[in-house]
Amino acid sequence: MWITSDPARVREWSRAYRAAHLRVGFVPTMGALHEGHLSLIRAAREECDRAIVSIYVNPLQFGPTEDLSRYPRPFARDVDLCRREGAAGIFHGTDEGLYPPGFSTSVEVAKLTEGLCGASRPGHFRGVTTIVAKLLAIVEPHAAYFGAKDFQQAAVIRRLTADLDLPVRIRVLPTIREPDGLAMSSRNAYLTPPEREAATCLIRALRRAQEAYDRGERRASTLRAEMEAGLLAEPLARPDYIEVVDPLTLERIERADRGALLALAVWIGGTRLIDNALVGAQLP
Amino acid sequence: MWITSDPARVREWSRAYRAAHLRVGFVPTMGALHEGHLSLIRAAREECDRAIVSIYVNPLQFGPTEDLSRYPRPFARDVDLCRREGAAGIFHGTDEGLYPPGFSTSVEVAKLTEGLCGASRPGHFRGVTTIVAKLLAIVEPHAAYFGAKDFQQAAVIRRLTADLDLPVRIRVLPTIREPDGLAMSSRNAYLTPPEREAATCLIRALRRAQEAYDRGERRASTLRAEMEAGLLAEPLARPDYIEVVDPLTLERIERADRGALLALAVWIGGTRLIDNALVGAQLP
Repeated sequence: MWITSDPARVREWSRAYRAAHLRVGFVPTMGALHEGHLSLIRAAREECDRAIVSIYVNPLQFGPTEDLSRYPRPFARDVDLCRREGAAGIFHGTDEGLYPPGFSTSVEVAKLTEGLCGASRPGHFRGVTTIVAKLLAIVEPHAAYFGAKDFQQAAVIRRLTADLDLPVRIRVLPTIREPDGLAMSSRNAYLTPPEREAATCLIRALRRAQEAYDRGERRASTLRAEMEAGLLAEPLARPDYIEVVDPLTLERIERADRGALLALAVWIGGTRLIDNALVGAQLP
Repeated sequence: MWITSDPARVREWSRAYRAAHLRVGFVPTMGALHEGHLSLIRAAREECDRAIVSIYVNPLQFGPTEDLSRYPRPFARDVDLCRREGAAGIFHGTDEGLYPPGFSTSVEVAKLTEGLCGASRPGHFRGVTTIVAKLLAIVEPHAAYFGAKDFQQAAVIRRLTADLDLPVRIRVLPTIREPDGLAMSSRNAYLTPPEREAATCLIRALRRAQEAYDRGERRASTLRAEMEAGLLAEPLARPDYIEVVDPLTLERIERADRGALLALAVWIGGTRLIDNALVGAQLP
């Protein structure tokens, strides 16, 4: 398994695979890999011939008051995990290599980025789409893999690649969860033991709304109220947003007659966690 | 010579060339081809193995009060010219194909786009960089060709491709001029005969400043005054901007000790023309 910080070397590897008629699957990550990431690497290996993983904590997608400096960077462990999963190589990006002096380009998706995490984290998605456009240009993969936990991110990247005619298939895979239902996230490492226990309120809130939907409830206000009640039961939780939106446009809806995305962002102490569930709709 | 409006067909052609170890040169245009464009096609053919020309009047790069609807579209003549120059194919883009419903992505370069035409035409360069990013993703060329008349555009696109790690070489070729020095432009077709005569004031203004530079003048204010005097001599001319800027950053300079770009935008009646000259510096 190769490891390089040089974009030109990554492109050489990818082009060598392509020249040998091997399909390249790409898994962009910020490292601190968990089972969610590993499921993406496995899918990339199964659906393509070679899996390339990028590990780079992208400063552009962090707001000035966010957790850029303390974001976990267990690189040696990540390398072991990639090797164990049979990744072909790791692109370990650097700030100097990716944003050299004079860098001044940004890539932005409107509309889809207006609500949910886009509203809570101004500039976040511009940072995501800019780095993803760069990484796709460097890696030139046949397919790129994203997790459904970051549902809005996946939708935005799908839009980005369609709009810019980037020749890559975007694959979105189901959220991987801990046994108690907490969605895997690198940020779960921030949680103290009592916070970790409290963090199950997200999945409990989603399940309350899912059960209401399954009983036939279609009013978004009621589904939202179910999620809110699930979160209010947990004193350590402070909701950032609680939304019921159209799974394609991510716009607020009044009724979930054609399915819905239930989406949450919740502060547990100093850690912001997100989770979501589709009702009456499938992952695209 | 093939002609298609289908991005997927263009990519197939380009990939077939690449698979046959042929280099692809790309000349993006808005059609109404003149000798300037033809010099780019010739360079693409000479430096690469196949030249692909795109012809598309990109609405995104026109302001609401600009000349989008009346921009000339002599497609049959353009096809003849491309064939005569030995182009391999023409991508004749369409609004529906390039900006389908829901399109919401933009690509933007900051800083370099702030002055000159960027200041006069808000949103223009965002339109340019968005379509060029798309066209480069579709055509996947080894090299792309631009004219020095649109000096700022070329600088912006160089920045774009470097910043997004797009695997393409940007080539900027000298401005091609009419016998009396007027820079070739599709917009020259708008000029009435008296306006056409008046339009030589741009090159006369640039030459006055060049001569002053050659005599040893380095003060930007004096170089600007020379250009202004050259334009004021022409009653049909209404200057939009008259600038002396750094050839790399395009920022205003006080002195031209390390060379300069002399840059003009001038209204001749209802037609806005631009031209520029480098002094003490070479095309990059």
